Amino acid sequence: MFFASDNSGPAHPNVMEAMLRANEGYRFGYGADAEMDRVRQGIRDLFEAPEAAVYLVATGTAANSIALGTLANPWDAIFCTKMSHINEDECNAPEFYSGAKLTFVEDTNAKMTPDALRTAIEAEQTRGVHGPQRGPVSITQVTEKGTVYTLDEISALTAVAREFGLATHLDGARFANAIVTLGCTPAEMTWKAGIDCVCFGGTKNGLMGVEAVVFFDPKHAWEFELRRKRGAHLFSKHRYLSAQMVAYLEDNLWHDLATKANASGQRLAQGLQATNAVTFPYQPEANLMFFEMPRALHHKVQAAGAQYYLMGDADGDPDAPVLGRLVCDWSVGAEGVDAFLAALKG
Amino acid sequence: MFFASDNSGPAHPNVMEAMLRANEGYRFGYGADAEMDRVRQGIRDLFEAPEAAVYLVATGTAANSIALGTLANPWDAIFCTKMSHINEDECNAPEFYSGAKLTFVEDTNAKMTPDALRTAIEAEQTRGVHGPQRGPVSITQVTEKGTVYTLDEISALTAVAREFGLATHLDGARFANAIVTLGCTPAEMTWKAGIDCVCFGGTKNGLMGVEAVVFFDPKHAWEFELRRKRGAHLFSKHRYLSAQMVAYLEDNLWHDLATKANASGQRLAQGLQATNAVTFPYQPEANLMFFEMPRALHHKVQAAGAQYYLMGDADGDPDAPVLGRLVCDWSVGAEGVDAFLAALKG
Amino acid sequence: MFFASDNSGPAHPNVMEAMLRANEGYRFGYGADAEMDRVRQGIRDLFEAPEAAVYLVATGTAANSIALGTLANPWDAIFCTKMSHINEDECNAPEFYSGAKLTFVEDTNAKMTPDALRTAIEAEQTRGVHGPQRGPVSITQVTEKGTVYTLDEISALTAVAREFGLATHLDGARFANAIVTLGCTPAEMTWKAGIDCVCFGGTKNGLMGVEAVVFFDPKHAWEFELRRKRGAHLFSKHRYLSAQMVAYLEDNLWHDLATKANASGQRLAQGLQATNAVTFPYQPEANLMFFEMPRALHHKVQAAGAQYYLMGDADGDPDAPVLGRLVCDWSVGAEGVDAFLAALKG
Amino acid sequence: MFFASDNSGPAHPNVMEAMLRANEGYRFGYGADAEMDRVRQGIRDLFEAPEAAVYLVATGTAANSIALGTLANPWDAIFCTKMSHINEDECNAPEFYSGAKLTFVEDTNAKMTPDALRTAIEAEQTRGVHGPQRGPVSITQVTEKGTVYTLDEISALTAVAREFGLATHLDGARFANAIVTLGCTPAEMTWKAGIDCVCFGGTKNGLMGVEAVVFFDPKHAWEFELRRKRGAHLFSKHRYLSAQMVAYLEDNLWHDLATKANASGQRLAQGLQATNAVTFPYQPEANLMFFEMPRALHHKVQAAGAQYYLMGDADGDPDAPVLGRLVCDWSVGAEGVDAFLAALKG
Repeated sequence: MFFASDNSGPAHPNVMEAMLRANEGYRFGYGADAEMDRVRQGIRDLFEAPEAAVYLVATGTAANSIALGTLANPWDAIFCTKMSHINEDECNAPEFYSGAKLTFVEDTNAKMTPDALRTAIEAEQTRGVHGPQRGPVSITQVTEKGTVYTLDEISALTAVAREFGLATHLDGARFANAIVTLGCTPAEMTWKAGIDCVCFGGTKNGLMGVEAVVFFDPKHAWEFELRRKRGAHLFSKHRYLSAQMVAYLEDNLWHDLATKANASGQRLAQGLQATNAVTFPYQPEANLMFFEMPRALHHKVQAAGAQYYLMGDADGDPDAPVLGRLVCDWSVGAEGVDAFLAALKG
Repeated sequence: MFFASDNSGPAHPNVMEAMLRANEGYRFGYGADAEMDRVRQGIRDLFEAPEAAVYLVATGTAANSIALGTLANPWDAIFCTKMSHINEDECNAPEFYSGAKLTFVEDTNAKMTPDALRTAIEAEQTRGVHGPQRGPVSITQVTEKGTVYTLDEISALTAVAREFGLATHLDGARFANAIVTLGCTPAEMTWKAGIDCVCFGGTKNGLMGVEAVVFFDPKHAWEFELRRKRGAHLFSKHRYLSAQMVAYLEDNLWHDLATKANASGQRLAQGLQATNAVTFPYQPEANLMFFEMPRALHHKVQAAGAQYYLMGDADGDPDAPVLGRLVCDWSVGAEGVDAFLAALKG
Repeated sequence: MFFASDNSGPAHPNVMEAMLRANEGYRFGYGADAEMDRVRQGIRDLFEAPEAAVYLVATGTAANSIALGTLANPWDAIFCTKMSHINEDECNAPEFYSGAKLTFVEDTNAKMTPDALRTAIEAEQTRGVHGPQRGPVSITQVTEKGTVYTLDEISALTAVAREFGLATHLDGARFANAIVTLGCTPAEMTWKAGIDCVCFGGTKNGLMGVEAVVFFDPKHAWEFELRRKRGAHLFSKHRYLSAQMVAYLEDNLWHDLATKANASGQRLAQGLQATNAVTFPYQPEANLMFFEMPRALHHKVQAAGAQYYLMGDADGDPDAPVLGRLVCDWSVGAEGVDAFLAALKG
Repeated sequence: MFFASDNSGPAHPNVMEAMLRANEGYRFGYGADAEMDRVRQGIRDLFEAPEAAVYLVATGTAANSIALGTLANPWDAIFCTKMSHINEDECNAPEFYSGAKLTFVEDTNAKMTPDALRTAIEAEQTRGVHGPQRGPVSITQVTEKGTVYTLDEISALTAVAREFGLATHLDGARFANAIVTLGCTPAEMTWKAGIDCVCFGGTKNGLMGVEAVVFFDPKHAWEFELRRKRGAHLFSKHRYLSAQMVAYLEDNLWHDLATKANASGQRLAQGLQATNAVTFPYQPEANLMFFEMPRALHHKVQAAGAQYYLMGDADGDPDAPVLGRLVCDWSVGAEGVDAFLAALKG
């Protein structure tokens, strides 16, 4: 009953097998491996973007930070929500890589709205050289709270950005989960919706540690390569990143795993809802959810061995409900969910 | 016949097996995995340093750069040789992480001497606030040219550093190879010789991509952790770094693999020497060597399928010898070496 | 009728005379001038802080940014209000010098409250190594909106900071104006109220361009000197900074000029209030004020030659009032104010 | 007898008068002062460059560092001599502003040669993404040792840079002195000789603290403005920078002062030479010189009150000569020089 994070479960067996296959013989390093050729082609095909520049890094923070460092100038504001991973969970890495300032757009249901984005953009660059300049817009899909932007919502945001000439970045640490929720294609959720750069996450979805950074305009390619190397994120034995991504793309493993994770997430959400004791501050639309639960119930499932994060003080007011987060990875399955729900009732 | 780099060969099967073992069940992320407990203890034991702070990162550039960022102030000079990896092959990553300036110490046989180090140190900080201040000393062992510092040589360098109150860093990307050459213990080559921080490399010696950073004084621990995270080098699924290092430590795999690599390197060097046609600008003391070879000979082995790097122009003066580099990894073996030597003669 | 900024007026004649006096003969550079000895002693006396480290720079942004770079780590959050000068008007300079992230404390009447500060501090550092760490608290006195913290308010804020072990910085670009408003001593408004570092502004108060940075704990001295030099803010002909500050300290010129500016500010505020047509979103407590005014009135005074800044669109809805800012420097005098008021009525 | 530095003497009276004139009335800040319009036009006229972007900063280190930050990428190498001011005397400020690495070109008589520059450039960017990329070339004129590049020498260097597509920067802290030595125009020594950006120094030549940064291609203008502000080098009361430069340009004061300084320098050099006791490691071609002098002679002039810097240990071997530096500023005059020479003989 491990619902702490989608980085807690094992990698999918196909990934391990691809690693074993890639471990034969010699390869040139630093991305010149044959596996990377397959990755590049595979991602271009998947995104219907034959010109795209495609790179791999090993952490989501690296993917976001180097991408934003490529898109932003050091004197820029990067527009994002306050609760975004780049703001709250990356220990100033985006600032380190870009020099820019994160500027917050008000959220509704954990999502930026076009109006809020416009307001935030218009509030910047009103002071000439004195204030930060308008820089890229960063959208998190699935959001940190488990909601999912619709395609129209993304398009409306990128339309605002484009109006001001700003680049757009999609933090897709849970890209696949959003695709499953929306039932759309990767192209539809990215460049067809106006996204310039996407971090196509694999680590939270069954890989060991790989994220692809995709620029639909290849003009960013060489700068990204230099920034990746300067950030110490270029792997010498790059084949082990490539191999993971090869497995991820093969037979749409990425989509299958997210389908599993989302199914578990939805099963869990419905089960919790059915108890009438648990509420959701945000509608769970993919594989993770925030919940409020009576403290006694929390103690019961925890005693049964369930693992998840609590927000705030675990030893707070015994009469107050707890606020927590549950995440289903690909491996938890219906049994895992049902065990949790049983513990809740039991 | 792959002698291009020790990052070109496969990972050792034990490493893959450890990865498979680690891929069972759930773990807390970000270094809180049980495997990391074993790594921490194993490295403390190996280095006879029960207080040491031990961390894993995935690239050698990350290990060096974050370590130097921890040891240096942004207004410092970092003392190293011009040919050191941190200067020539890391695309300004050490400067990015530290803000400091790399300042060169003259080398003899690719190694700093105490006199040259003293001269370089004394030349800095003679201008008060105007010039860079004296910062850490970074020693590369095995050197980039394939020579190895003796224990006395390291001790003499750290004595100079200590005299000026400067910290010392050992870039040990080929740490194991140097240990095998010297026949000494890790403690003897590091803290017993005055080293404050070592990057204990695994990537070039049979792992997929792991380097341990070890601070013998744990006061650096928290700052390193923050710098690692801010640099986007903290892995969520950290178990896959830990597992590699577990395998590396187990039954001294690290030592066995370096013994193999060095044996190949020495066999290759002796074979080349025996041709009377090849010379070494630096004495090959571990598993890599620079060589000068008649161009015709180079074309012959290359035609036979040998892979290695040439320095300078491959299509240069046909009468001039070529300057190249050969590196033996753990996997090349006597057969690989002999095949190369046979191609040379054949 | 120039009310655009307190950096628009002339320097006080005493300052020019001091410059002329300092322009005799030869001096050692870089702060080793005899005038700087007087400045150091004068500021230590003024602040009743015989141990304080005292430095001069030429811009307020430099004073704030280098001071914050000295107090903060690159992985920290710096606590400030959203409207603070360091956030809105310094084009990411504080981030450039510190690497840290500015984190906002809710304001009431343009001032942080202890509760809001505590809330902001408690919200940080709840994520271990993942989020920014708690760093210094930066208070702006006079606030950007023209209100003034009482001594008790400052003490209450620094008490919260101290509880969490955080350093405190006072952006005193209008330090003298606040002293005049409060009728207190510099010591009372700084170290006696728990402030660790103050930027004692001169530029907005009759100098040409000098701010003193004062650390009450001299342990910061050498780091500040190195950061100042590395930021290119150490003047070779430092005597011309010193001379301005000598004049500023002499006969309490700093206090006299702020007294003049505040008197003009209060005269102006009362005059505006008396019109019954002008309102203040913030109570004008020193020498600057934000106001709302019918657009027609604005056009009238502007046509009469008055200069001041409008917030937002000058050509907006003709029926909507305008929001603007008026600042009185030391030189504007009762005549200047009365001319403005006359234009308003006329 | 003050020969320590050309930043030790007074500002020229015309400069003080211009400051007094500029101190009348109100100005918009941050470079929107009327004086700056005159400066911009005056410098464009002087350099015969009607399109040039012209900015003022207060220190030479700021001028160089912000200019280089504008011309270089963070992953670049900046080519310069080891003895250049940007390397030895700016406490890593160029690295702070640019992120780039300073890479040394061998010098002959303190000057780069085209061959040495080509060698240095060719040695970079041979490692793809691994090593630093080729960045701008920075030439110091007058050199730090008192020699002066001829126009042909500058043209030959910029031709090499242009061949590799690299920008060129001229550190002209003693620009005027070089112009006087060469008897050429500012245009001839800059854009006509292939220079892209020049720091036109005033501080060492009779101003209080102003350097102009001139980009002959105005495409750099806005980036420079943002970098200047972000570096905290944009003056609010900018008129006091402008006024100095107005005076400097008026009636070619800049040229007159450098003519005076150079005349003193040459008179001093000839006087020293005539003693037969003093030698010059570098030929004194402008207003400063390095010299070797018997220690006894040094003690004699020092006892007579002469001020200058010694290189190395002032209390060294009594039988060894001393190595020192003498600099003549505009104010020292024939009397000052003769007093020094008399003390030497006396």
